[in-house]
Order: sequence, then C-alpha cells, then structure tokens
Amino acid sequence: MEFEAMSCDELSAYLRSVPGVYALLNEPVELDIAEVGDGNLNFVYFASNTKAPEKSVVVKQAPPFLRLVGKTWPLTRHRMEREVAALRRFGALCPQHVPRVYHADNELFLMVMQRLSSHRILRQGLMDGIVYPKLAGHLSTYLAHTLFFGSDLYLAPDVKKQAVSAAINSELCKITEDLVFTYPFEDHPSNVYSAAFPRAEIERIWKSPALRVAVGEMKWSFMSDAQTLLHGDLHTGSIMVNQDETYVIDPEFAFYGPMGFDIGAVLANLLLAYFSRDWHDREARANGGLPYRDWLLEQATQIWNGFADQFIALWREHESRRKSYFIGDDRGGACVDAFRARFMQRLFADSLGFAGCKMIRRIVGMAKVVDVTSIADEALRATVEVRALRCAQRLLVERHAIADIGEVVAVAREIQATRYA
Amino acid sequence: MEFEAMSCDELSAYLRSVPGVYALLNEPVELDIAEVGDGNLNFVYFASNTKAPEKSVVVKQAPPFLRLVGKTWPLTRHRMEREVAALRRFGALCPQHVPRVYHADNELFLMVMQRLSSHRILRQGLMDGIVYPKLAGHLSTYLAHTLFFGSDLYLAPDVKKQAVSAAINSELCKITEDLVFTYPFEDHPSNVYSAAFPRAEIERIWKSPALRVAVGEMKWSFMSDAQTLLHGDLHTGSIMVNQDETYVIDPEFAFYGPMGFDIGAVLANLLLAYFSRDWHDREARANGGLPYRDWLLEQATQIWNGFADQFIALWREHESRRKSYFIGDDRGGACVDAFRARFMQRLFADSLGFAGCKMIRRIVGMAKVVDVTSIADEALRATVEVRALRCAQRLLVERHAIADIGEVVAVAREIQATRYA
Repeated sequence: MEFEAMSCDELSAYLRSVPGVYALLNEPVELDIAEVGDGNLNFVYFASNTKAPEKSVVVKQAPPFLRLVGKTWPLTRHRMEREVAALRRFGALCPQHVPRVYHADNELFLMVMQRLSSHRILRQGLMDGIVYPKLAGHLSTYLAHTLFFGSDLYLAPDVKKQAVSAAINSELCKITEDLVFTYPFEDHPSNVYSAAFPRAEIERIWKSPALRVAVGEMKWSFMSDAQTLLHGDLHTGSIMVNQDETYVIDPEFAFYGPMGFDIGAVLANLLLAYFSRDWHDREARANGGLPYRDWLLEQATQIWNGFADQFIALWREHESRRKSYFIGDDRGGACVDAFRARFMQRLFADSLGFAGCKMIRRIVGMAKVVDVTSIADEALRATVEVRALRCAQRLLVERHAIADIGEVVAVAREIQATRYA
Repeated sequence: MEFEAMSCDELSAYLRSVPGVYALLNEPVELDIAEVGDGNLNFVYFASNTKAPEKSVVVKQAPPFLRLVGKTWPLTRHRMEREVAALRRFGALCPQHVPRVYHADNELFLMVMQRLSSHRILRQGLMDGIVYPKLAGHLSTYLAHTLFFGSDLYLAPDVKKQAVSAAINSELCKITEDLVFTYPFEDHPSNVYSAAFPRAEIERIWKSPALRVAVGEMKWSFMSDAQTLLHGDLHTGSIMVNQDETYVIDPEFAFYGPMGFDIGAVLANLLLAYFSRDWHDREARANGGLPYRDWLLEQATQIWNGFADQFIALWREHESRRKSYFIGDDRGGACVDAFRARFMQRLFADSLGFAGCKMIRRIVGMAKVVDVTSIADEALRATVEVRALRCAQRLLVERHAIADIGEVVAVAREIQATRYA
C-alpha cells in the first residue's frame, strides 16, 4: 500500500485518541496542526491545543522514503524505532538535554515528543552571531554522559554486546558510509560544487594518498568500532538552544560506533561556522567586544576540554565505586591514569579525523550546511569552502600529531589568515 | 534438570537414529564409543563402526558448565550453536582446512563432525620437533580467507552488521576478557606461577605503565572492534596437522572481533614453542640440519607474509571484480595501494599486541601451554617463562615501531640469547 502522509484531521483525531497525549494537551476539543516541513527524513508537525496554544507537542512520522529526495530513495520505516530507542536511552542518561518522548507508535512509525518552543536550531543561532553562554558546558555534559555510559568502560560486557545488536541501523549507517566517507572522494553524481569552487581543490583531495588513507581509516573505524551508542548525526542542526537550555534532537542515525564520530561532528560544524564568518560578520556586528569567530573557536575548545574532564570524572567515579579498573588492578598506581591519558589522546585523534570527514562532505558532497550555502558572494563562498577543506585535510592527516584542541584552534586561525587563490 | 553426560549406549542409539550419520558410518549394527576426554569445555567422543573402524565420527556435546573446572563454572550450552555456525561459515570459506559438520542438534547441544584420524594436535607435533612443510601455507590461506570474507572489505554493510549480531558470544568472550586481558595483570587467585618463576617479573609487568596501557588498548579493541568473524582461540592446540593437511578446529569462541586477535594467537604460540626449545631440544635432535627453533621462527615469518600476500590478493581481486574500492575511486592511482599498505601495517601492529597478551596469559594466567608446563627442570622453565614475558612486553610496547615480521624474529633471537638472572 502506497504511503500517504496523514491529513491534519486524521492526525488530530489520532492524537486525541491517545490517552497520555490527550491529557498532556489538556484534553483538547480541537488541535492546530502545522507541518514544520524542514525534516530531511521525516514528516514533522506541531500539534497544539487550539484553546491553549502553549499545550503543544511535536509529532514525527517516518515515511518509507528519504523525505528530502522523495519516493525514489526508499528507506525502511523502522528507523523510527531506532530514533525512539535512542531518545529514550539518551534521555535516561541526560534528561536535561534530550526531549522527552511521550508516545511511540510502532505500527504508524510515529512518535509524539516534547515541543521546544522557546528554543531554536543552533546552526541558525550561530549564523546570527548569538552567544549561548551555557552551550559548551551543556554539550560537554551531553557528550560525556552519552558516550561513557554506552561503552565497555561502564556497561557489563554482555549488556553492551546486546546493546550493539539492538542498535544495528544498517540503512542509515549506509547513508553515512556513502555520503560522508565515499562519494565526496569520487566524481559522484550526487556531489554538488558551488559555482566558483575551484575544481583543482577537488582533484587535490581525490589524489592525495595521505588524505585518502586517513579517510579510509575513519570509514573502517565507523563501520567496525562498536564503542558506544552514538547520536550519529550530531551537527549544529541537531541541537536546539536558548540562553539557558540545550537539547540534542533527531538521533535517527543512532548506532554503536566510534565515540569520536559524535565529537567530530560538533567540532566540524563549529569550524564550518567559523570559516563562514567572513560572510555572516560582513556587517561587523559587535558581540560584547569579543569577535564572534573567536567565540566559536572558544566553544570548540571548551567543548572538547569540558567533555574530556567530565568523561574522565565519570570514568574515575565509576571505577572507584566499583573498586575495579578496566585494565585490572593498579598496584603501582601509575598505570590507570596512563591508560586514561592514552585513551583520551586516541579519542581526540579520532574526533579530529571524523571532523575532517564531516567538513569535506559538507563542501563537496550532496548535503550542505546553510552557514556556507547562504553566502551569496560566490567568490567568498569558494574561499570559505577552500579554507574548510584545507582545515579538514590537516585535521585528518595530522590527527595523531595534533597535541590538543589549542593546536586545532591555531590551525583554523592560520588557515583563516591565508589567502587561497 | 541436572545435566548428565550421555552413556555410550545412549550415544550409540542416538547416532544410529540420525539418518545422515547412520549412512555415513555405513549403517552400523554396533558402535564403539570412546570419550576423548581432553576437551576443556565440552565432552568429546569418537564413535566408530565396530565392524568398520575407519567409518568414524567425532561427537561433541556442550555441558552447561566449563568442563575443565566443573559445575562450579556454569556456561550456557548455546556456545555449541556458535561453534556449529562458525565451523559452517569457515568451512564454506576454507573447506580444505575446516572439519565438516555432519549433524547438529540444537536441543542436545551436540554435533557430529568429521574425524581427523591421521592428524594430531599441532602443539604436540611442535613439541616433538616435527617439520610440517605445508603448515605455513595452509595457515596463511585459512587466515586470509576467514578474516577477509567476514569483513566490511568484502561483505555488503547490512549483511556484515547482521553477522556481527548473529555472532554475539558474550559468555565465551568474557572468559577471554578476564583470563587474557585482566586477571594476568592482577594478583588474581586464578593465576598460576611455576615454582621457580621470579615474582619480581610479575611485579615488573603489573607496574609498567607502558605495558599496561598497551594491554588496555588491546582489551578495548577486543571488546569493540567488530572487524570480522574470528576463530577466537586460535592457538596451536586448535590446529590439527599431518604432513599434507592442516585443519583448524574448536571455534567455540568465535565472534566478531579484531583480525589481529587470530593472527596474534598463532604467532604467540609459535613464539612460546620457540622459547621452550631449550627443553624440548635437550637431546639435540637433528632436523635435517636446520635447528628446529629456527624452523619455528621461519613459520611465523611465512605465516605472516603468506597471510598478508593472500589477504591483499583477495582484496584486490574482489575490488577489481566489483569495480569499486573501499575508499572510493582512485583517480590518481596511488591512493588504494597506500590505504592497503596502511591497513596491513595497523593489522600487523594489532597482531603483535594480541600476541603479547596471549603469551603473558600463558605464563602468569590460569591456562598454560604444555610446551612450557612439560619442562621438568624448574630453573629452565622459569628462564623460558621470563624470556616469553620479555618478548611479549616488547611486542606490546613496540608494536607500532616494529616494521615487519623480520624484526619480530630478531627480537625473539635477541631475547633467547640473553641470560636473565
């Protein structure tokens, strides 16, 4: 049977028939339904009590195709189950940063969730040059909790292995495997290049053994390293913010993968925001004296450092409570901290590698970021794109040599200061 | 209900009731049943037609406990399903090196398989100083085929992810996680030290941050890197040989893990055999002029090099047939080979790291190898053990710096030539 999106009347009747949702919406006689329409994958609606519009929920339904492309790109609707399971898991770990799921319907592949009406998409806020004073702290907390508690550092090994199995998400992983790790490095018909983007830059990337080796290693890691339950698509469009709160939404790409993939997504999108400031700062807004582009790099620094501190703290606390270490007893007292330091160093390198892949796919691949596509000046856009690519390449190739996040910031500044013909 | 091993009469009646087995044994009126009794985990029997003893099969049944220890160490019987599935999968990939499964009974947790009557356990053959001219070629082939065809380099991504899920083997992995990667590095009650083994050596290992970091990294990789379907316990006691043939048996530890774990197991056991030659060569057997210990190192060299050549050949052949590369198109022509070289270099380092862990657990952990435990001279045994530990430590700590298998051989020879007080 052909899929048909629900009409507003159908959706309204449905929502009123679900007791929990009906109560939550204050027993509405009538509902206002508005399709949000910006979902890449799904149909998304706001449903509000007509008489009490503050009583409102989000409804998300997965059609049997990729909504952005249409029926020619089929996708199983079971992705909705993955998303619901991930929201519930992340919500249990980090309730202050994950929207609540009120209701999930496994037959309609539909869920009803918390509406974040006073929040906006972070990417839009960054484009507008808004400072979010709590953002870095919140994202550090979210990353530390979700990445730590899904891993073998915390879970019993059998529980973790079952979680790996339960989180298999082949179809959406395939999208990432293709669109992030493969197609951008080929002359693939799905790639899109901006008008003034120099073709020589693409050729350079395609033909650089050091870069291609690094990307291949990140792809292999993405496909094999079942380290923890990831969000799987943690760009700044999957984050909703206001001055006080931060929520991470849309984990339909959730699966067991390498921790650095989520961290890298955040770093990549901050760097893309950074390089695009030449356009968005063109009217030279003042932001309390501190140039906004510096604030963006400062967020990258604070997010990594805050994440690392909290991750280590959760790890220490857990092992101290359990009175045993992942590596076994430490009679000399120097081994456990040495292992943690190495672990974080490798995770940092992984994060930079994935950040590089994520930046490249946004420049030469199919799916773009509006930070860059909104640059109306074609030449400037091309410059921003080349800078982003150069930065990505250095992160990938030098990821094991870059000592800390401060060096990443230095690389970004250096590239920003360079003129590319 | 308490588990009771089958009586010979019960087993005989059972085997005659299975049509395929009955036919294979040439419709026996009577069967001779002999318990082999050397299984660590399972009950193992030979069942032969009394009138035609060459018509014979192996029967393996999993009791709900670890047989070596007894009912105090319970284990689910479902491990037999893992073993049957792995034998069938490896048998499909490499029929010449994997015994055939004739019958599997998922209610009795029992299987009937090919009897290898003219073969012996490789470990015993090595102790006796037997040269197996085809061994290295066979093991290279087995490793290349089983490791390659289970991985994302070959399988479609969704098929591989389902295979990861189907191969979850938490209980037996837990044994490895504890007995290989954790307990040997603790003052654990399950550890066993030989009479003359110097305690200072153990303390040295426990308190070496570089070593403990390396072992921690290998444990993390073992638990997270779902690269391919592994045998999971590929020591020289899991290999049966004669002058012409080589079979790999007992894959009950099979699961999706890091490729280097199987390769490392083979290398570790060859090195343990090497260091124990001081005892087994004490009567100075001649082996066609070439000292046997050199032959052992030569096998390590040939197995790694042969594996690497065949693995790369399978990979090239597959990508050439499919007309696409794991890393995407290679317009410059230099990237695909660069990626393969890096991949093999990392796999080599992993293999050395796992070999080191496997050597250490055989010296200080619970489960020993008879190559070493059969050394009646306590002082000599301790020397052999210290050498094995020193070698293991260097493999672990220097694994990223050791360029090739030739360097491993040099390290082994250097340690063999050193006197340890």
